[in-house]
Amino acid sequence: MTYGMIATWRMACDGIAAATKDLANGGTSQKAIVDAIKMVEDYPFYKSVGYGGLPNEVGMVELDAAFMNGDNFDIGAVAGSRGVKNPIAVAEKLSHERFNSFIVGDGVAKYAIKEGFEMQNMLTERAKKTWSNRLDEMSRSNLSPYDGHDTVGMVAVDKTGSMSCGTSSSGLFMKKEGRVGDSPLSGSGFYVDSEIGGATATGLGEDLMKGCLSYETVRLMGTGLEPQAAVHQAMTTFANQLERRKGKCGAFSLVAMNNKGEWGVATNVEFSFAVATENLEPTIYLAYPAEDGGYPTIEVASQEWLDAYQTRITAPIQ
Amino acid sequence: MTYGMIATWRMACDGIAAATKDLANGGTSQKAIVDAIKMVEDYPFYKSVGYGGLPNEVGMVELDAAFMNGDNFDIGAVAGSRGVKNPIAVAEKLSHERFNSFIVGDGVAKYAIKEGFEMQNMLTERAKKTWSNRLDEMSRSNLSPYDGHDTVGMVAVDKTGSMSCGTSSSGLFMKKEGRVGDSPLSGSGFYVDSEIGGATATGLGEDLMKGCLSYETVRLMGTGLEPQAAVHQAMTTFANQLERRKGKCGAFSLVAMNNKGEWGVATNVEFSFAVATENLEPTIYLAYPAEDGGYPTIEVASQEWLDAYQTRITAPIQ
Repeated sequence: MTYGMIATWRMACDGIAAATKDLANGGTSQKAIVDAIKMVEDYPFYKSVGYGGLPNEVGMVELDAAFMNGDNFDIGAVAGSRGVKNPIAVAEKLSHERFNSFIVGDGVAKYAIKEGFEMQNMLTERAKKTWSNRLDEMSRSNLSPYDGHDTVGMVAVDKTGSMSCGTSSSGLFMKKEGRVGDSPLSGSGFYVDSEIGGATATGLGEDLMKGCLSYETVRLMGTGLEPQAAVHQAMTTFANQLERRKGKCGAFSLVAMNNKGEWGVATNVEFSFAVATENLEPTIYLAYPAEDGGYPTIEVASQEWLDAYQTRITAPIQ
Repeated sequence: MTYGMIATWRMACDGIAAATKDLANGGTSQKAIVDAIKMVEDYPFYKSVGYGGLPNEVGMVELDAAFMNGDNFDIGAVAGSRGVKNPIAVAEKLSHERFNSFIVGDGVAKYAIKEGFEMQNMLTERAKKTWSNRLDEMSRSNLSPYDGHDTVGMVAVDKTGSMSCGTSSSGLFMKKEGRVGDSPLSGSGFYVDSEIGGATATGLGEDLMKGCLSYETVRLMGTGLEPQAAVHQAMTTFANQLERRKGKCGAFSLVAMNNKGEWGVATNVEFSFAVATENLEPTIYLAYPAEDGGYPTIEVASQEWLDAYQTRITAPIQ
């Protein structure tokens, strides 16, 4: 059997590069997901996940994460987590609980402390400055406070054919206290079935949860569609519905992989993602929505793009 | 066009009886859902919803609720709500927000207070006694603390063909702080599309969210299945999967109604539910799972059953 991982955003690539090495050596999909997402959570310059994630409207970092095991459908999730170093690790632990597997608010830190997880102040000096600058901008203009909601979501298949997926996010920048998006919600932010495949989403959580797009993508793969056809059909069908019925549709980007390591992507905005499989070195791609409603244009990210990205995320903040 | 409501558990009946009178006079499905669920939340003897709901392991009542508008897919939800009198009303209000439409933990009370919602200590003397007795029982035996997770869920269609649904629950008795079940999760606890129909679930939330059963039921109705066929197929297919893949499956009960007011029910345990339509007076039914895996046996609840129920829920607690 083959192995592979697909994940949302450029930030996921280092994590999946390391984790697929482990998959090549017989590591499990469960471990790959947790290890790879932890790397993203720990890197301080990714401002939408884990340590260094941007805070809510009162300056508090509140994090959401989920883990799903595609063998038995076990799910663990946290939302509004404060002060826990690795929300994905707590979510994975919760997935083994028969009861109380989705915990929110204060309860997350209480559970994490009792279970021996590492605690950490998740607010970096850099994130605090970005927040403070945004408050200034908002006081000077009518700028919408909401901006940025780049969840890292990953799907993995290991050599035994076992699949898992996970998500981690600081959610919408300047969100209200306790706001939760799609990332910890089964079927919306993520879904995986080892007998079929998995999918995960990023974008405007408030709109993604209206369509259960990760579940729908996996279901369509289960009817025999290739991942690219399934994820494209799930996303465009619902995005069109939402345009027609509500008059607008937020940013939607999804990635999918089946249990053969085949993959696909759907998006209605410019979107970076990362893939590594038995036959493909870890690669960062850019996807652009097609104007005719067809499959997105996909190209390998250029060195110039990667350099500009790294410069941008590490640029000094006044 | 016709009108109607279906809802989980006997406790829903007075609410839908009142709300369908309003539907008969041209009231909206949105108002019907909020009014009917508020009646359940306000009645102190229903121990799994709203005021009088059973507390978590530390004696705190934490409530979950959600509202969905089937015309435009707007969703509002709260989880781990403390001290808010009517979580369903807050959820409905949140459904109008483009951002921050799902709020958990402390954030719920903060939002509710700012928006002028009524606050109330949701712990009744009766619920406190029940909790305290349970602690005693647990200290004397190896009794599992978890018991009771009777979410009220409702689906409504009004004379214009507009549909809505909602849920409200105190969740699992003795749950850990911040535990969330399926009730506020789109696609798992509820889903509705006015062009098709709606569905809502009650049972073990940790297992219900593994299958996105409310979404799947609505999707199947959208392929042309009658509500009874759709809800039965959604539930039994996934319950069988879970038995095979995980070795066990928690309590699952779902009700569904399409936009013609036709309805169906699926359950793997004894389950009461209530229906009222243009052609059916408010009626309480009991459903029993069929041994052959076919549709459940459905009968009107006898006066004897109703009397015993009322006696049980209002019996003095020592």
